[in-house]
Amino acid sequence: MAAVTGPEIERLIQLLARVPGLGPRSARRAALHLVKKREALLKPLADAMQIAHERIITCTACGNIDTQNPCTLCGDPRRDDSLIVVVADVADLWALERAQVTTGRYHVLGGVLSALDGVGPKDLAIESLVQRIATGTIREVILALNATVDGQTTAHYITELLSAYTLTVTRLAHGVPVGGELDYLDEGTLHAAIRQRTAV
Amino acid sequence: MAAVTGPEIERLIQLLARVPGLGPRSARRAALHLVKKREALLKPLADAMQIAHERIITCTACGNIDTQNPCTLCGDPRRDDSLIVVVADVADLWALERAQVTTGRYHVLGGVLSALDGVGPKDLAIESLVQRIATGTIREVILALNATVDGQTTAHYITELLSAYTLTVTRLAHGVPVGGELDYLDEGTLHAAIRQRTAV
Repeated sequence: MAAVTGPEIERLIQLLARVPGLGPRSARRAALHLVKKREALLKPLADAMQIAHERIITCTACGNIDTQNPCTLCGDPRRDDSLIVVVADVADLWALERAQVTTGRYHVLGGVLSALDGVGPKDLAIESLVQRIATGTIREVILALNATVDGQTTAHYITELLSAYTLTVTRLAHGVPVGGELDYLDEGTLHAAIRQRTAV
Repeated sequence: MAAVTGPEIERLIQLLARVPGLGPRSARRAALHLVKKREALLKPLADAMQIAHERIITCTACGNIDTQNPCTLCGDPRRDDSLIVVVADVADLWALERAQVTTGRYHVLGGVLSALDGVGPKDLAIESLVQRIATGTIREVILALNATVDGQTTAHYITELLSAYTLTVTRLAHGVPVGGELDYLDEGTLHAAIRQRTAV
């Protein structure tokens, strides 16, 4: 394609192709759209990215990303200081926050333990979690980790680690997703849903 | 989501959601990925967009977008001046150029005639096409327009308009796409493929 347009557009396409959700083909379409809307979209997006690059930082308390440190959530005085929701990733934090399921604080591990990928406890923000708990104000830790093998291994590891402290450690319930059809669910989920059935 | 992160990230997500190929959900995922890779991807992408915004212009000769005017293709002395390939959109030009199907020049109409969308001949780069042809060096015009009703209406209109000049006007062949299965093709395509069958 080197002969079709200048190297500037090619570079833009190549970088866009590295954005999750865009492939080489859709990156070309996106670049074309951006260039067509250069004042309405390309310029504002370039500016927003520049600002994001300059101002976005990782919260040293919880691991969320924000433009302030401590982050908006850690700095909010209305939130419950006695509850920490542990998540693997910032995306998980955002998902929980969108659903407004908790008024507690968060702690982002930055991943899960994985023997396969060589991720050990030192690679995750586990020590900083223990330090937060050692302050003594925490009464409950909710382990909101993925229901995968690695997620559950991580949950188990943290549970063991926190057994030294007088607090409640809980995990998310397993069961039928709301709106889900039984027919399409795996056996493990169905087993869990039956085992943890609730009275009507 | 206003309470989760600062307004800067929200703005980045909103703008990313307007990029074709990304929706509200994937824009959030993309923003998160960009922020995580702020040095490796966010910064280079912001710079590439800034450069694209500053330098990319529309070629006044053919309508291609490039950082030079006339564009790389119009300025290439090795290309055939006697042939113009007419396309609706820059994306079509790029598609043809990727396939390296022609060494001729291009002419981007900027759309197709559409009674429904209120697109008339004045809204397209048709007058500039006639002007290019009036120079007299053109021997063939290939109408590489979509095989849609609007595309074919546009092709018909341009054919009529160019009948005053001594040149050949051609259109792309209809037929079975390479790798295509007959079973999945519409009747129109099959009819065209039979009608325009070639000797083996």
